Amino acid sequence: MVKASSRLFSLLLRLLAAAATLCATVIMATSHDSTTLFGLTLDAKFQYTPSFKFFVVANAIGCGYSLVVLFVPPTSSLSRLVIVLDVMVAMLLTAAIAAAGALAQLGKRGNSHAGWLPTCGQIPSFCHHVMGALICALVGVVAYLLLLLHTIHTVLTPLFP
Amino acid sequence: MVKASSRLFSLLLRLLAAAATLCATVIMATSHDSTTLFGLTLDAKFQYTPSFKFFVVANAIGCGYSLVVLFVPPTSSLSRLVIVLDVMVAMLLTAAIAAAGALAQLGKRGNSHAGWLPTCGQIPSFCHHVMGALICALVGVVAYLLLLLHTIHTVLTPLFP
Repeated sequence: MVKASSRLFSLLLRLLAAAATLCATVIMATSHDSTTLFGLTLDAKFQYTPSFKFFVVANAIGCGYSLVVLFVPPTSSLSRLVIVLDVMVAMLLTAAIAAAGALAQLGKRGNSHAGWLPTCGQIPSFCHHVMGALICALVGVVAYLLLLLHTIHTVLTPLFP
Repeated sequence: MVKASSRLFSLLLRLLAAAATLCATVIMATSHDSTTLFGLTLDAKFQYTPSFKFFVVANAIGCGYSLVVLFVPPTSSLSRLVIVLDVMVAMLLTAAIAAAGALAQLGKRGNSHAGWLPTCGQIPSFCHHVMGALICALVGVVAYLLLLLHTIHTVLTPLFP
């Protein structure tokens, strides 16, 4: 009974992580805005920023992995590999949020010391998309963190009763 | 015998992580450069960039934690908490590298689409410090990743012989 509910819990967390990372990927990948400054049309796309490209790739990997791993039976010999990959995917998604978040913060506030002006005033729709993608990705990371804590709990309980 | 060598291995990894994160904190915290542009003196300090401040704080936490946890005996009831904190510190250090790395890349290459010019040409010493700090922090993250893989291996081996 406990085992079934524990399995259901991790299944739901994986589905949540898959949905959240899929949202993050789609929202970031469809972000687009343009503005006209001094007669020039400036485009804003995620492809123009390496951190946002990394964010899309990392979340797509996180989504694909979360879906594939649903089909690994919990008693299979692959379970140990799944725990290792869970740790790596959690770190990958964390890195993606941090890198994209750093650039989003810069777009919002700018950095006067480096002479980098904020850009969100000119391209608000792009900035809102990025913010939405970051929130989705954060849900995915929290799901993975809970998944890892759940794994630690279920694996270690027999050892430290 | 196996247990003693396993304990020694994780001890060495924690010492490596502590040394690497200490180096990363000190190198980033002491990074400073200034340049004169059009008669104005421009300063470059880590405090001027939120991502670099986060990097220093995260690595200082990582260093302090790595040292404190050396005094937790492996058979104590705190062992489970140590594994949970290991996961969180690994994610924190990953986020710090990603955020600082995103800004370092921007400083080096700039982003013509956003109108952000590269700054490393003007403040090379600051950029070299940041690069050194990132390499040290990367060593710290790899040490934590190995530590987690080692924990997974030693904890799960009795369950999946």
